[in-house]
Parts: sequence; structure tokens; C-alpha cells
Amino acid sequence: MNKTIILANRPVGKPQLSDFRLLDEAIPEIISGEVLLKMAYVSVDPYLRGRMSDADSYVDSFELQKIMSSGAIAEVIASKSDDFKVGDFVLGALDWKEYQKSDGTGLIIVDGTVAPLSAYLGVLGMTGLTAYFGLTEIGAPKEGETVVVSGAAGAVGSIVGQIAKLMGCHVLGIAGTDEKVSMLKSKFGFDAGINYNTVENMTEAIAAACPDGVDVYFDNVGGPISDSVYANMNQFGRIAVCGSISVYNETAVPMGPRLEPFLIKKSVLMQGFIVRNYAKKFPEGIKRLSQWLKEGKLTYTETMVDGFDAIPQAFINLFEGKNKGKMIVRI
Amino acid sequence: MNKTIILANRPVGKPQLSDFRLLDEAIPEIISGEVLLKMAYVSVDPYLRGRMSDADSYVDSFELQKIMSSGAIAEVIASKSDDFKVGDFVLGALDWKEYQKSDGTGLIIVDGTVAPLSAYLGVLGMTGLTAYFGLTEIGAPKEGETVVVSGAAGAVGSIVGQIAKLMGCHVLGIAGTDEKVSMLKSKFGFDAGINYNTVENMTEAIAAACPDGVDVYFDNVGGPISDSVYANMNQFGRIAVCGSISVYNETAVPMGPRLEPFLIKKSVLMQGFIVRNYAKKFPEGIKRLSQWLKEGKLTYTETMVDGFDAIPQAFINLFEGKNKGKMIVRI
Repeated sequence: MNKTIILANRPVGKPQLSDFRLLDEAIPEIISGEVLLKMAYVSVDPYLRGRMSDADSYVDSFELQKIMSSGAIAEVIASKSDDFKVGDFVLGALDWKEYQKSDGTGLIIVDGTVAPLSAYLGVLGMTGLTAYFGLTEIGAPKEGETVVVSGAAGAVGSIVGQIAKLMGCHVLGIAGTDEKVSMLKSKFGFDAGINYNTVENMTEAIAAACPDGVDVYFDNVGGPISDSVYANMNQFGRIAVCGSISVYNETAVPMGPRLEPFLIKKSVLMQGFIVRNYAKKFPEGIKRLSQWLKEGKLTYTETMVDGFDAIPQAFINLFEGKNKGKMIVRI
Repeated sequence: MNKTIILANRPVGKPQLSDFRLLDEAIPEIISGEVLLKMAYVSVDPYLRGRMSDADSYVDSFELQKIMSSGAIAEVIASKSDDFKVGDFVLGALDWKEYQKSDGTGLIIVDGTVAPLSAYLGVLGMTGLTAYFGLTEIGAPKEGETVVVSGAAGAVGSIVGQIAKLMGCHVLGIAGTDEKVSMLKSKFGFDAGINYNTVENMTEAIAAACPDGVDVYFDNVGGPISDSVYANMNQFGRIAVCGSISVYNETAVPMGPRLEPFLIKKSVLMQGFIVRNYAKKFPEGIKRLSQWLKEGKLTYTETMVDGFDAIPQAFINLFEGKNKGKMIVRI
């Protein structure tokens, strides 16, 4: 028994359970130089939605009827490799299979005694690095400036806000439930939070929460929420465009106000990015994040779901805002 | 007789002649420290459209029933100042008056023997500096990269293209008549030109003219032309957002495809700017532009219109693409 998940259909709009199919394969045999891995923790992330389409994206599309993959932690349960021993936990881009073999390419051994294993998929992994580099390299906030984060209760957003506070900024987070907004302040130390689902006028609410205007906007959502932030940007503002989850499931080209006149009027910079643009600086980022984590200056949340079969639903739930922080499936 | 032009109405949509009114004032007397100026050349520019509205912009709005102003060259015809003598020509932000006095603040003496006086309103003035800094500071093209310029036959665009060629780039210009497109290649040395009014599919035409994709886009127009350029941007592309003339006269908020997903997918940078952001570097820019001009490496066109009364119509004509290069009114 070796369950695997394949892409059964390319989603139209919101992904459905029927877009995935669970298959059973044999557990592979390993040869010299290989390891056998048993999946432990699987990361599900909004960007995977792009890979499920055949439109060209910054990462390759998944092939139809082929196995899907994502960042994951697995345990080495058999080894014919000199680099890995049984009992090691490794981080890598792994197939959605309960068991898989690997020649070790791209695998990194992670130490569960330094931080919980799942942290390597989140605050010490792509999530934390995305927050760190998007904020520091693009947003480049100065002490005393105002930073706004959308999707603020999400995995990336909650870390962005904390780093911005560590940099001495006034930080507003935007999220979709009162519970999340309350958590932004009580757990993550944001100065202010707005629930975009209940506030009457987003633009005015942002203005009220940011009396000195907005210098840096870390955008995880796009769409009308972002329009309201743009309306509050200061001259020479910087926008780190990290995600646009509000439009990922659109079937038509999403339309909005043209941004060019606003960009000129305020001399605003917008920079889209993906974390691997900063791959050369990952060691620096991991060092700072680990340090903050160790000093208790950085906290994080996970939404942990159990069982291999739960992967598709956990992914779908991302688009309904059901996760708080990093969404992880524990196998 | 001292003609002046005031803002009679705030334009709705396209500016009309009736939005301006010609008045007559007395020629002012000067006191110690002052000079009397006689207008010689007046620059009319698209950004003035923003100043005619009361919406907040990056420059102050003109007041209703008050005199308008713009960059201009005037002759000193009487002087009680130690800094200026009769016969000097000065550059400054001047009122739209045939005669005006000044205490010299902000005036720069220009030398008509180095370059024609009107050049100080164009290639050696704000126009040339806008082209130079937008391209070099934001676009930052590397040798061999592809640069696309919209509004390419305009005052700024034609200089952008020439500088990009001097930097060793492949350069495509977009303009609105066959005559302009032909001039891009024959006069300004662009590698390719597209007439957006006659081409069937802009996106495909740009792809054909830019076989290696687009690395830098210098945007003077915004709107659907820009959408077609965006569709051809390479990863890590840079967009210098200089002007958005296609939407300046819109009365409703102009809508277009949301850019955030595109910015993320290609890790593209968009930076809006106005030339005075680079004020500290103006001497560097003027030095390089003067040098190129002297060496015959930079050419420019002017559309010269005669007579003080012609200022409003010359301005209106900007929005109908009637100018080639810098639009200047000679008094």
C-alpha cells in the first residue's frame, strides 16, 4: 500500500476534490545511492493552484494524470546512500506519495531538536524566507514607517508583520475574521488589524489605522483589498507583490483600476517576486529567522491536518481562508 | 498690453479652448532686486492636465480664475538685479504672461550659443532628464537587452530610444502614425517601430519585433498599449512608468487587467516616477545629455507653434498626438 495523489482534472475556478485522484502504487525498491522516504509533513500552498493550470507560470505546470508534489518533510526509512541514514528527516520538493525513493538530490537533513520538524516547512522554510526577503529587500521599511500586510493571519503575512515590528514599524494587518484580527494583535504583536469582511469602507478604515499613510505594503491577496491600500500609499511607497490569492481562481481576466496613474502620482514602486529570486541569500535569511525564533521574538501558527488523504481538502481550504498560519498535513 | 492666460474651467475629459481665458494686464513695474521678463518660449506638457484638475496630484493644482504656468524661457528686458542683465535668457517655471517680473528665485541663465534656447525646455531640460533618469535609474538596461518605448515619437520617448541605443540595446518604439514610425527608425535610430493605430494584434506585433522578449519598458501612455507590452515582458523585467496620457482625460476610473499576477509570475518591477525625484543628479544628467548632443549622438525634434494666443491649442493638440517631439510655443 503506497497511496499517491495525481492531478485528475485541471481546475476551472476553485479547485474541487474531483480534480484530485488517490491511487495506490507499490512501495519502490532502492538501489545503491538511494534512500526510501516515508512522508511525514506536507506543505500545501496557494501557488500550487498555478501549477494545476496549464497556463505558463513561474513554476512548471503539473501534468494531467501525473503525481503532484510540494515542499515536504520525510523520514529516511531505508538507506543505501552514504549521505543519509535511517531515522534522518529530510526536507525537499517531494511527490505526494506515502513512500518514495530518492537519490538524495535536493534533499536537506533537518534537525527536529532545534525546531519542530514542521517549522522547516514554515517559519524556517520557504514561508519565513518569503516574508523576510519580500519585506526587507523590496519593502525595505525604515524605523518609524508604516507597513500594511494583507493575508496577515496567513503563514507568510503573520511573519511579515512580526519582522516589521522587529524593524520598528507601525504595522497594520488585514484579515478576514474577527478571530484572526484579534490574533494579529494578541499573538503576533501587530499594532492594528482590520477585518475586510465586516468593515464598511476599507479605504477609510486603513486611513484611520495608518494616520501617517502607508509606506510599505506586503501584498498576499491582490484585488479590491489591495486597491484600498493603494489609495493610502505615501509618496515613494514600496509594494512587495507576493501573492494574489483573491484572483487565482478567476476564470476570466480579473479587472481592476489601472495602476499606472497612481504609481506616477506617488512615485510608487511595485515589485513582484518569488522567494527563489533570493536563493543566494537564503543562509542569511535562515540565520536571522532562527535567531529571532530562538530568542522568542518570532512566533508562528500552523493549521495541522492529519492523514495523507486529507491533502486535497487542506489545499482547497486555503482558498476559503480556513487556515491560520501555515497549512500543513501530518501523515 | 500684457496678455495672460487663466484657467477658466476645470476640464471634464479632454481640455477645451473654453477652459482657458485670455486676459490683459498692465506690464508690471520692477523694484530693486527684480527683473522684467519677456516670454520667449513656452513648454506645454501632458502633466499640466493633472494640474488643471482639483484632484490631488504630484504637483499643485492650478487655481480657478488664476494664471497658469509652465516651464519657459524668457528674455530679461529690464533689470534692477545684480544677478541678471538685460539680454540674458532665463529658464524657469513662469506664469503664462507676455511680461512678468521676478526676483530671480528659481531662474537659471541659459546660453543660446551652446544649444538653441528651446533645447533647454527639451533635450537639455526636463524632457531629456526625464528620459535619462527613467531609463538609466529604473529601466537600467544592460547591453544587448530589449527596450520598448511607448509614445516613442514624443519628446521624452524619442530621447529614451536614442539613449537605449547608445547603451547597446535592441529598441522598439510604439507610435500612432506611419510617419512617426518611419521617423523613429530613420531619424532616431530605433531598430523597430509599430503603429498602434494600424497593427492588427499589438501583442503579436511586439513579440515579432522583440524576438528575445522585453526587458525594459519605458511607458509614456498606459492603457491597452501597455497591456500588450506587459504580455511580452521577460522575467525580471523593469517598467519605468513615466506617463499615462491615454487615461489623463478619462472621467471615470480607467479599468484594465489586474497586474499583480503578472508582476509575480515574471518578478517584474514597476516604478512610477517624476523627474524631480532625481533632482540631486540633474548635473550628471545634463552633462551626459550635453555631451551626446555635442557629439551628434542625440537628435531631437520640436513642434514649434507661434504666438502667445496659441498656447491653449498647442496644449490641447498634445492629446491628439499632433506633436512630433517637444511641443513648444514661440512667442
